[in-house]
Amino acid sequence: MHRFELRVRYGDTDQMGWVYYGNYLRWFEIGRAEMMRSLGRSYRWVEEECGVLMPVLEARARYFHGARYDELVGIHTGVLASTRASISFGYRIVGEDGTLCAIGHTEHCFTNHDAKLVRPPAEMTSLLGVAPRVDAELAELLGVRT
Amino acid sequence: MHRFELRVRYGDTDQMGWVYYGNYLRWFEIGRAEMMRSLGRSYRWVEEECGVLMPVLEARARYFHGARYDELVGIHTGVLASTRASISFGYRIVGEDGTLCAIGHTEHCFTNHDAKLVRPPAEMTSLLGVAPRVDAELAELLGVRT
Amino acid sequence: MHRFELRVRYGDTDQMGWVYYGNYLRWFEIGRAEMMRSLGRSYRWVEEECGVLMPVLEARARYFHGARYDELVGIHTGVLASTRASISFGYRIVGEDGTLCAIGHTEHCFTNHDAKLVRPPAEMTSLLGVAPRVDAELAELLGVRT
Amino acid sequence: MHRFELRVRYGDTDQMGWVYYGNYLRWFEIGRAEMMRSLGRSYRWVEEECGVLMPVLEARARYFHGARYDELVGIHTGVLASTRASISFGYRIVGEDGTLCAIGHTEHCFTNHDAKLVRPPAEMTSLLGVAPRVDAELAELLGVRT
Repeated sequence: MHRFELRVRYGDTDQMGWVYYGNYLRWFEIGRAEMMRSLGRSYRWVEEECGVLMPVLEARARYFHGARYDELVGIHTGVLASTRASISFGYRIVGEDGTLCAIGHTEHCFTNHDAKLVRPPAEMTSLLGVAPRVDAELAELLGVRT
Repeated sequence: MHRFELRVRYGDTDQMGWVYYGNYLRWFEIGRAEMMRSLGRSYRWVEEECGVLMPVLEARARYFHGARYDELVGIHTGVLASTRASISFGYRIVGEDGTLCAIGHTEHCFTNHDAKLVRPPAEMTSLLGVAPRVDAELAELLGVRT
Repeated sequence: MHRFELRVRYGDTDQMGWVYYGNYLRWFEIGRAEMMRSLGRSYRWVEEECGVLMPVLEARARYFHGARYDELVGIHTGVLASTRASISFGYRIVGEDGTLCAIGHTEHCFTNHDAKLVRPPAEMTSLLGVAPRVDAELAELLGVRT
Repeated sequence: MHRFELRVRYGDTDQMGWVYYGNYLRWFEIGRAEMMRSLGRSYRWVEEECGVLMPVLEARARYFHGARYDELVGIHTGVLASTRASISFGYRIVGEDGTLCAIGHTEHCFTNHDAKLVRPPAEMTSLLGVAPRVDAELAELLGVRT
């Protein structure tokens, strides 16, 4: 799986003293953007050059341990499943000391800029085809067979 | 189910022109807070007077139609399931014209301010016991039997 | 000045226990949007019907007292100054018990959807012309002569 | 001035297609946190080890050019002024191509965890004493004499 490190910021926390639960979905966004960049193309390229948007159909997060201010969390991202019409990614958020903070997945369809469903162009499909996959441990936690 | 109306703000949108997917979890938070307030007690009361926090164990959202800037969305909230150790809420986000924008649920445990699992006090249990339940239509969409 | 009430949400707070300082700019946005709505037109109308955007040139906030979770804060908004090319608004954030939490102002120019500076259409100018003005007390705090 | 690079994320943008104006205050927070880290101590250390909080008294931003999704913006941070009771930082946000996107400053006081004003401990004062200063160009834009 692709790994990216991110510093927890003050504005990410809430008065409970940990990161606000909604902010993990932002981290998932960062994870999939950086995974694509590691393949040589950015999500901006997908939108601007391929003319394809990838709106989220579903998002899910399970929280095990709250991330803390100033921690350097790891975001692990991989492809969970893909069809010609949709793709889903799995994520693992790991604390600075290796603690599992959260897992999750998102499912996306492909549309053009007029919000019509489209098939992604070949270049994009081959790119996503070589993307790192979710590992067995995360797949099991997410309840998905790999 | 409890109903609350909320105006979509500029800062809620992203460059796709709809509300950013992570912000729906904030709306779910608002939904459950306002549902509790409608029962006569606020979530602040839960934290300050009962000494109980309700951290999120799991959150899930399914997106059907993007909410737009300045729309007055409806947040429908109800209890999905509850045990002595946890509670889950179901949510429906409805656009100004009645379009179903999103559904979701969150599951929570009960802890004290030292992050230890606790049983909620009787007053809180009876309050949650009379809370509105998720309706059959949402329960089915969420894949839960009522 | 126009008055609007807003509930502080969990996601607005940070681990200091008060509202994160950046979120006040969101409240200023809400204040000016609701002030315009009170005049009979929404900012969405400005963007969609007048074809005019009002990007922010400058924003400033002074913080006196932190707003707390679940407080019902008041957002007071008025026009601070206006020329044919720009407009500025002043804001006061007041806590549930009347405490002055923060003040601020934003300055905006007018552009079309291609980011070119434009003069706002007559209908928009007359609308802003009848908007409530910042009161003398806030003007003085902001260091502006009315 | 201290320099730090940050990727613009989808959730940072709004429907105008640029970064939402309130999010720059988050970038200023990141700038001063990373400047302190570059001096050998984190702001977490300030809060946890020195027992000192640095709430914001004032924040100001001037916007010149909107930052775009996926841009790698530069955050330049320096001390603008400091007294025994307060400190202010200046910031410059620079786009990937060197365009000046925004400037700003924040002013902070020092309090303990009970929100009482305090003098920062010697170790913290000496740390801030060796922090990089705002350069002449930014000081002039901010209207401050260095």
